[in-house]
Amino acid sequence: MKIVVDGFGGDRAPEEIVEGVIIALDKHKQLEVIITGDENKLKNLINGRYRDRIQVVHAPKVITNDDIPTEAIRKMEDSSLVKAFDILKNNEDVIALISAGSTGAILTGTIMKIGRIKGITRPALAPILPTKRKDKDVLLCDSGANIDCKPINLYHFGLMASAYYSILYNEKSPKVGLLNIGVEEHKGNDLTREAYQIFKNSSLNFIGNVEAREYMSGNVDVMVAEGFAGNVLLKASEGAVGAVLSLLKGSIKSHLSSKIGAIFMRKTFKELKGRVDVLNKHGGSPFLGIKKLVMKNHGSCGRLNISSSIDQAILLHENKLIQKIEDALVEKVEK
Amino acid sequence: MKIVVDGFGGDRAPEEIVEGVIIALDKHKQLEVIITGDENKLKNLINGRYRDRIQVVHAPKVITNDDIPTEAIRKMEDSSLVKAFDILKNNEDVIALISAGSTGAILTGTIMKIGRIKGITRPALAPILPTKRKDKDVLLCDSGANIDCKPINLYHFGLMASAYYSILYNEKSPKVGLLNIGVEEHKGNDLTREAYQIFKNSSLNFIGNVEAREYMSGNVDVMVAEGFAGNVLLKASEGAVGAVLSLLKGSIKSHLSSKIGAIFMRKTFKELKGRVDVLNKHGGSPFLGIKKLVMKNHGSCGRLNISSSIDQAILLHENKLIQKIEDALVEKVEK
Repeated sequence: MKIVVDGFGGDRAPEEIVEGVIIALDKHKQLEVIITGDENKLKNLINGRYRDRIQVVHAPKVITNDDIPTEAIRKMEDSSLVKAFDILKNNEDVIALISAGSTGAILTGTIMKIGRIKGITRPALAPILPTKRKDKDVLLCDSGANIDCKPINLYHFGLMASAYYSILYNEKSPKVGLLNIGVEEHKGNDLTREAYQIFKNSSLNFIGNVEAREYMSGNVDVMVAEGFAGNVLLKASEGAVGAVLSLLKGSIKSHLSSKIGAIFMRKTFKELKGRVDVLNKHGGSPFLGIKKLVMKNHGSCGRLNISSSIDQAILLHENKLIQKIEDALVEKVEK
Repeated sequence: MKIVVDGFGGDRAPEEIVEGVIIALDKHKQLEVIITGDENKLKNLINGRYRDRIQVVHAPKVITNDDIPTEAIRKMEDSSLVKAFDILKNNEDVIALISAGSTGAILTGTIMKIGRIKGITRPALAPILPTKRKDKDVLLCDSGANIDCKPINLYHFGLMASAYYSILYNEKSPKVGLLNIGVEEHKGNDLTREAYQIFKNSSLNFIGNVEAREYMSGNVDVMVAEGFAGNVLLKASEGAVGAVLSLLKGSIKSHLSSKIGAIFMRKTFKELKGRVDVLNKHGGSPFLGIKKLVMKNHGSCGRLNISSSIDQAILLHENKLIQKIEDALVEKVEK
């Protein structure tokens, strides 16, 4: 099984990327990895490890967040990302691409080089978020890539994220909720009202409208949102969690008794931090709606994220994510 | 100075309403209050206190959340809310109405009985939210009442909430931010792009687009949002804060050391709770864009909220909130 990894995507590349690959190779005995990027630098870092299971493909250039995605993908053929896309595209036995590079460039690459699944107009990311229940996460789709959606796009987000969730958590029929400003069927705007009807008549396990307040309750598995609202949901939660932790920290500092208390509460703070950082556990997110697996990692991710992302790619490949999305779509597309 | 109070609005009426009025009368020596509702019940609760400064106006019926707002306002003339609106409308010396009743009914009442300020098509609420800085709050306008807004509506939200903020916090030129999914001028959807241009060319202290993550940073005073996104922002923050506190609580329970730590940290937990409940400090919110002051209190509010709301109404009256909004609008309306 072969996976191609963009060796120079992300803030901590190439060191952390290479080490993440090594961890994955330790774990998956059948795995082979192709790393793209500056050959000398990569070989130095690899330093002879897994000589027979790592292949370095030279690509001297790096696409950054400042490059315009369409131009970069079209013209920077000798960049680590474009090289990785070409390898994914031209080799059937390469099952996935992993990159922590520019989201815009990766999205553009997936569409231009790999292509959308038939019937999908808007590929999407579905980041994994924590809930207040220890054993439950929630997927948010879309979280900001797709603005001004049509009702059918929202339905596709639900369908794709549902297939993704079912593999990730081994859950046959994930609960799909529609982000809205009230739970009643008629609530919201034209977009949510029309999408509601499509979901209601679909075979997804649609639980109806879900308010932003409830999405971390653990009662919904897949939260569907138009990209603007989804982005607000994601970032408002991050901001609020950050604000609470910052107020907590400030208050602890200003009271001696709290300082003492905090020492006793170390376990709890560690647990809280671990729960909030749920993304680190899973590595990246796949672009949903694309013909092959492309995993996007956070720009600041480290080795453990990269290896988790490889774990996830293998899991999604073995459980046929793309096939499952195609199958679920057939009914709708044929209409 | 006279204020009319809906004696039977809210879950804890009439007891908490009456006690809130008493607290306000203790504090403001020039204040007179008219309370609407069942005369016998109210007089029993008042029990002879402030005989010369409280007037009870009999209104046997109560509008609930189950009543259809427009019908209720039109037909339930002998309800405590409609009676209060009629008193506010017909008496120039009554400066404000306070109610903790159905938001829909109050909004409908403000429009049908009192009327909008010339030039405003969408009245709005601007709830006060905490930030991570101890000494700063932020206003969110709109927070869910106004869906499918036009760019000019967003501008009016900024203008009205800015006038409100400047009085509440004695700040001449509050920083107004536009909720968006990126900070650059071209980011977002057509609505935010067009609204951005209006703000940019206005005399408000417009600081540009603000992401949901940043709205609790304390760097923005007035956060402007279309109602759907604003509602998601508000409820996502509430949900996330609730989730963190619930995870914290759960973790403390499961470790003996944390239980001990928590005892030492009481002061901090109390501070945190106080900061999160910032709304309680200020009582209710005024409906912005209405010709007279109408304060909406939360349905579950108690006596302190009611008295804070009266404090706020007096402050807003003395500082001429409505006049300030009218003045700020003139320029735009005349164009």
